[in-house]
Amino acid sequence: MPIAVQKFGGTSVANAEKIKRAARRAINAFKQGNQVVMVASARGKQTDQLVADAIELNPNPPKREMDMLLSTGEQQTVSLLAMALDAMGHKAISFTGTQIRMVTDGAHSKARIKSIDADRIHEKLDTGHIVIVAGFQGVDDHDDITTLGRGGSDTSAVALAAALKADVCEIYTDVDGIYTTDPRLYTQAVKIDRISFDEMLEMASLGAGVMHGRAVEFGKKYDINIHVRSSLTDAQGTLITKEVPQMEGILVSGATIQKDLAKIGLNSIDNKPGNAAKVFAHLAQAQVSVNDIIQVEVSPEKANLSFTTAKADLAEAKKAIEEIMQQVNCESIFVREDIAEVSVIGVGMRSHHGVAETMFGALSKAKVNIDSITTSEIRISCIVDIDQAQTALVAVCDAFDLDKPAEKRKNQN
Amino acid sequence: MPIAVQKFGGTSVANAEKIKRAARRAINAFKQGNQVVMVASARGKQTDQLVADAIELNPNPPKREMDMLLSTGEQQTVSLLAMALDAMGHKAISFTGTQIRMVTDGAHSKARIKSIDADRIHEKLDTGHIVIVAGFQGVDDHDDITTLGRGGSDTSAVALAAALKADVCEIYTDVDGIYTTDPRLYTQAVKIDRISFDEMLEMASLGAGVMHGRAVEFGKKYDINIHVRSSLTDAQGTLITKEVPQMEGILVSGATIQKDLAKIGLNSIDNKPGNAAKVFAHLAQAQVSVNDIIQVEVSPEKANLSFTTAKADLAEAKKAIEEIMQQVNCESIFVREDIAEVSVIGVGMRSHHGVAETMFGALSKAKVNIDSITTSEIRISCIVDIDQAQTALVAVCDAFDLDKPAEKRKNQN
Repeated sequence: MPIAVQKFGGTSVANAEKIKRAARRAINAFKQGNQVVMVASARGKQTDQLVADAIELNPNPPKREMDMLLSTGEQQTVSLLAMALDAMGHKAISFTGTQIRMVTDGAHSKARIKSIDADRIHEKLDTGHIVIVAGFQGVDDHDDITTLGRGGSDTSAVALAAALKADVCEIYTDVDGIYTTDPRLYTQAVKIDRISFDEMLEMASLGAGVMHGRAVEFGKKYDINIHVRSSLTDAQGTLITKEVPQMEGILVSGATIQKDLAKIGLNSIDNKPGNAAKVFAHLAQAQVSVNDIIQVEVSPEKANLSFTTAKADLAEAKKAIEEIMQQVNCESIFVREDIAEVSVIGVGMRSHHGVAETMFGALSKAKVNIDSITTSEIRISCIVDIDQAQTALVAVCDAFDLDKPAEKRKNQN
Repeated sequence: MPIAVQKFGGTSVANAEKIKRAARRAINAFKQGNQVVMVASARGKQTDQLVADAIELNPNPPKREMDMLLSTGEQQTVSLLAMALDAMGHKAISFTGTQIRMVTDGAHSKARIKSIDADRIHEKLDTGHIVIVAGFQGVDDHDDITTLGRGGSDTSAVALAAALKADVCEIYTDVDGIYTTDPRLYTQAVKIDRISFDEMLEMASLGAGVMHGRAVEFGKKYDINIHVRSSLTDAQGTLITKEVPQMEGILVSGATIQKDLAKIGLNSIDNKPGNAAKVFAHLAQAQVSVNDIIQVEVSPEKANLSFTTAKADLAEAKKAIEEIMQQVNCESIFVREDIAEVSVIGVGMRSHHGVAETMFGALSKAKVNIDSITTSEIRISCIVDIDQAQTALVAVCDAFDLDKPAEKRKNQN
């Protein structure tokens, strides 16, 4: 029998009415001939409340105890879902991460899944139960409760789908899918029907908030189709899936904008092997996450090196660079906080030319100045002035027809 | 190093201020040279809120899922206590019932403890941690979470004290000890300094609410001194302990009143072997709890049989008796709901005469009519009209000097 994993986020289980709606959805999938595993997050603002309770007692609570505390939110949701299913006459059983041996490493608050005991779940599925698993949480080798960090329940759901060899992993949320770009910034944005894991990973890392990157990585690694859809309707959402040839016909699947960036430039460093490594090793030691890196030679002996980082990490990054600048013989450093990064993403870039040209042309026509450019195999990103970010995004979306479904865009094969 | 177990009830951890106070108390005990294990209940009205959330979804929720839900309340408290201790600079670690293998049978909502793994607790105590254990909860052989029912956290604490061979088990609560009788009904009631397990068991079963009987049974079985005391002061409370010879010098330790009783009488049943057994087997089958039983012969062939039960069980009890009355050739039945039971308790009764005489004399002087009388080795109970219950209690308390500390009562050795 096919297995469906259905994940319900906090807004989709926020009150009794929504819990019942989630339960009915699971029963529908069951009646359609599936074995059903639900994965649930904490209800509504429960996690925020628990965090506030903790901070009131300890502004810097031990991570092990924080995981112990926060994991109760999901445990409450799953038992309530089981009760709702029981009231509807359906056999149901809830499990904590500990109970299904969702074994993780011991990195509290950002643990990584190592293994899952699928046997207990299969046993209950095979006796007609809907199984409900607490998302976001696991257990380490010492029986300590761990949590998986941001987007953790999505990761739980995809990992369970992989362990159970499920046919689909549905992510129910308060939007109806992944959009070509953020509809709050470009109201004509349209829902994407299918997107590849790699494209979704790029979009997630560039700030598209719906799915967290780790869950998508799991999906890619174990080839689990992830269906992101609305908990309020039966409409199809967005299928995140492995790349198929026809996807390459779509030049650009989506566009993103990131505004919480800062850029640090090191002017005129000695252009010799190992200098860039020194700089980034020092940043890593200071636990600064670096986004894009650009280096250009300015003379046979000298180069300019710059990188972007989250604004939140800027102070730490600047301190680290000031410590290292003499070692690489850097003349001066400069910092820009008034920037944004506009990106387009699409696996079609692998086999088609002209994407860069179209993008730069659109920005030029909109009189947007490009500070710098970085690319990967499936994306092109431009750093622009933050004042021009919105203009830039609209220009790029218009240029790639991101207000139309993929099959109606011009320049598509 | 001596081990102290400290249990904090829901009112003693209801908010951040109270959690900090409980943490400070544990640190004080630690500084006085003890290894300290805290046992905590859910905060304030958390459990009530969770029950309401459940009932909204399912008026008759599956007990397994209810245990899954309710156990989160204690888990939250213990992690918050660990955070508070950490903020005060003290090493601390919290554990669920599952983590310390508080193994119970599978009777959800009223599970019984089978074993506890003391090793993990000892290991943390030996490395200087204050260990905080979630009360009320255990785990069965299938890794399902169980709860221990009413008074469960007290039972957890005493069971832990037994498993750890602790020197004392302190029960912190919102009253400052056990009183000779309910101070709301007899304002001159005084705090009892020491009371035996057997007396406390009788008082608990007769409605003295502070300690639940099961925790006291555990204390008796494993000889754990239980110190019931206020979470607000450092005053000595009441020590529940094994019987020592000087306790027998105290004729009466306390008095109780029970008002939620009903009585059913079976008039003129055939007085032959096995008839009483038939009646009570039938009541047991109907899951009716019976309190006192009285049978008197009215002729060589006939007897009157009566028993008391909780008012809540009366309808069920009456139905059961109507089903069985023909089998025992009962002429008629009568029911009284307008009754109360006044009792005096004291291990001194074992070795002293005159307690019954004093009690009946006091009731007579107060013009209280006695419906019926039952006794055990260490208690005497009289059923009286509910209208006269308050008068009866005051008369009995005055007669046995329950407004004075034990050593100042007359007629004491």
